[in-house]
Amino acid sequence: MANEQFDAVDVIATKRDRGRLSDAQIDWVIDAYTRGAVADEQMASLAMAILLNGMDRAEIARWTGAMIASGERMDFSGLSRPTADKHSTGGVGDKITLPLAPLVAACGVAVPQLSGRGLGHTGGTLDKLEAIPGWRAALSNDEMMAQLEDVGAVICQAGSGLAPADRKLYALRDVTATVEAIPLIASSIMSKKIAEGTGALVLDVKVGSGAFMKDLERATELARTMVALGTDAGVRTVALLTDMSTPLGLTAGNALEVRESVEVLAGGGPADVVELTLALAREMLEAARVPGTATIDPADALADGRAMDTWRRMIAAQGGDPDAPLPYARHTEQVLAPADGVLVGLDALAVGVAAWRLGAGRARKEDVVQAGAGVQLHAKPGARVRAGELLMTLHTDTPERFDRAREALADAVTIAPEGSRPAGTAIVLDRIVAV
Amino acid sequence: MANEQFDAVDVIATKRDRGRLSDAQIDWVIDAYTRGAVADEQMASLAMAILLNGMDRAEIARWTGAMIASGERMDFSGLSRPTADKHSTGGVGDKITLPLAPLVAACGVAVPQLSGRGLGHTGGTLDKLEAIPGWRAALSNDEMMAQLEDVGAVICQAGSGLAPADRKLYALRDVTATVEAIPLIASSIMSKKIAEGTGALVLDVKVGSGAFMKDLERATELARTMVALGTDAGVRTVALLTDMSTPLGLTAGNALEVRESVEVLAGGGPADVVELTLALAREMLEAARVPGTATIDPADALADGRAMDTWRRMIAAQGGDPDAPLPYARHTEQVLAPADGVLVGLDALAVGVAAWRLGAGRARKEDVVQAGAGVQLHAKPGARVRAGELLMTLHTDTPERFDRAREALADAVTIAPEGSRPAGTAIVLDRIVAV
Repeated sequence: MANEQFDAVDVIATKRDRGRLSDAQIDWVIDAYTRGAVADEQMASLAMAILLNGMDRAEIARWTGAMIASGERMDFSGLSRPTADKHSTGGVGDKITLPLAPLVAACGVAVPQLSGRGLGHTGGTLDKLEAIPGWRAALSNDEMMAQLEDVGAVICQAGSGLAPADRKLYALRDVTATVEAIPLIASSIMSKKIAEGTGALVLDVKVGSGAFMKDLERATELARTMVALGTDAGVRTVALLTDMSTPLGLTAGNALEVRESVEVLAGGGPADVVELTLALAREMLEAARVPGTATIDPADALADGRAMDTWRRMIAAQGGDPDAPLPYARHTEQVLAPADGVLVGLDALAVGVAAWRLGAGRARKEDVVQAGAGVQLHAKPGARVRAGELLMTLHTDTPERFDRAREALADAVTIAPEGSRPAGTAIVLDRIVAV
Repeated sequence: MANEQFDAVDVIATKRDRGRLSDAQIDWVIDAYTRGAVADEQMASLAMAILLNGMDRAEIARWTGAMIASGERMDFSGLSRPTADKHSTGGVGDKITLPLAPLVAACGVAVPQLSGRGLGHTGGTLDKLEAIPGWRAALSNDEMMAQLEDVGAVICQAGSGLAPADRKLYALRDVTATVEAIPLIASSIMSKKIAEGTGALVLDVKVGSGAFMKDLERATELARTMVALGTDAGVRTVALLTDMSTPLGLTAGNALEVRESVEVLAGGGPADVVELTLALAREMLEAARVPGTATIDPADALADGRAMDTWRRMIAAQGGDPDAPLPYARHTEQVLAPADGVLVGLDALAVGVAAWRLGAGRARKEDVVQAGAGVQLHAKPGARVRAGELLMTLHTDTPERFDRAREALADAVTIAPEGSRPAGTAIVLDRIVAV
């Protein structure tokens, strides 16, 4: 490579030998990778060195900044109201964005929610909303801005202009076993959120079997890293660590989760979904610094129908019919309780994999998801069950998938003797703010 | 990739998480990489994980075996005499192969020396011999075998059939800063030597500024790893750790080094080159288990002209004219001593880089080397020098290179007050045998 400012081998060797990457090295390597002057195998080697040897706070901030600089930045400062966004690191049954965005908008804060599709056992927000007849994920920047001003909430596909370096790097990490590097996870998420231009950001960092982060220590490190990155970039950022050892709510699957979200917006729905939705809504309102935040209770906006009204307008604005019946899968099978006792464990990962195998998720980007497929739960941890009682209903359009889904669920359920209690039932485990 | 036995991401993740790679994983990943089912970026990530997290003795042995299995194996068992080979990890002025191969052959052991070209500041044995008019590096396997039987010594280009996985992996490591991994260095060298089929192998592992291994600890680890690999594969293997803080002999450059080698074969030459040549020859004879080894002294074969006779036949057998004048560079410049005193330091790396910049070596594989270029030394550490006395002569066909060569030499020379002595003058630092 002629006339390059650095040699990729020297940059990789710096991190391999536990050195700090300089600002200039980071700016160069991200730019050169984006334009192809650093090869995939060189970035893969660097990513593994970063995974194993780490980056300090200043390096991660610069790395994130370089990824932001690789693309366009959005600007919501022209809107008549403050903005707040939410990002979840992904979990099983995590439909929280669906009720949350219209709820927060109903309380006076604009919510620009740029979302993705699912890969693997965690579903994608866009996949869920696409179960609604007519709804479309792709909006132009102008359409998005107009909807934010008019309705106050938009959930749409992230444009390809934000942090293109991240898109290229993420695809590489996916095939090189370097997804797990906390500096790279944090900069990947935060580069897009900072480039998006939100004023406030609430992070929902999941912990447990169904989450990307299996233990509290690493989830805390990720949350601290992201809160620092957001804060350093001028975005008011807070993170909640929330439990993902058990699926959220009673559904995992696209149309199934939309149905449950609408129940929450109607003032009902599973207690854990309502609790987490309200907790995140309060954080978003506080971080957005709406005048009079202290007196606004989002629970009121759920109870009096304002959140539902915003939901209906948000769906309709993107071509969806909020009154259209949601699809059901063509086939169902039942999973029954194997014994009498107390349900003390219902493994999130197992349920997520089962829903995925039933057709709710995709193994490769180009796969098509089934709108109706998934797992419906009839009991959650803490419930007393009787042998033979209905525990789950499996939904799919392709019944040959039932066997593999049942395999995934083989050890999902733990039933203990009468009087037992599940290990922990708190949804919000910790709250991380800027230091 | 359909129908693959493993997923590359799982194999990488195993090493990333400090696990052992199974025999089946190693066999698969080497084979799949060779045929393109594992991508360069995946192997790069794995190589960095191996560099940082290591491999145990059994993993390295299996990795080496898998690389051997990727290509053909040679067989010298039909020869009428035993075989012994030598491998040097590369240094400045390291022309030892040139006198050593005919010397050992003159003592009754066949020496099949498959060599390479140089890259960077260490010269390549083939580049040196190609300074001899008419000499050709490429032989067929049949030509090589016939020359081994007839002359007893052959120095030629390694065929592309030996360990093709190593060739592909080495090119990848070169651009991904993963050359330095001891398991990968050891398996790269030993896969070719074991596939070559030699009965005995003596390793010359260089230590010091001009060598790949700068410190004794890492050089010892590399030597132990290689001796174990050879021994486990049934090759009688021994390693000498030898000094490379100062150039070997008084020349660094292709024709310059051939000239010096011929001096050694004529019974003269610099003391350090003679000492190391004899030390390695004795090890090769002992490892080859020639009957009566104890009574054969290779110094006799240097003194009485038998080694020179074998050299002449070896060169002639490959088309070279042993009597043809060797080329000289068209331009020379002198480097003078800056002060009176004792020369206590003459940095091997600096001299190697200077010779390289003068045209003796190449920066890229496709570069052409100058036969006459290089550095000629007129004093070695321990010598008393006077200010203005000639220390080095620089040779090149392209005089615009002198400035950059002098830059490399700026701190190469250390002169201390009268009565001082250089730090260490031993050539052989340690001897590593199988445990």
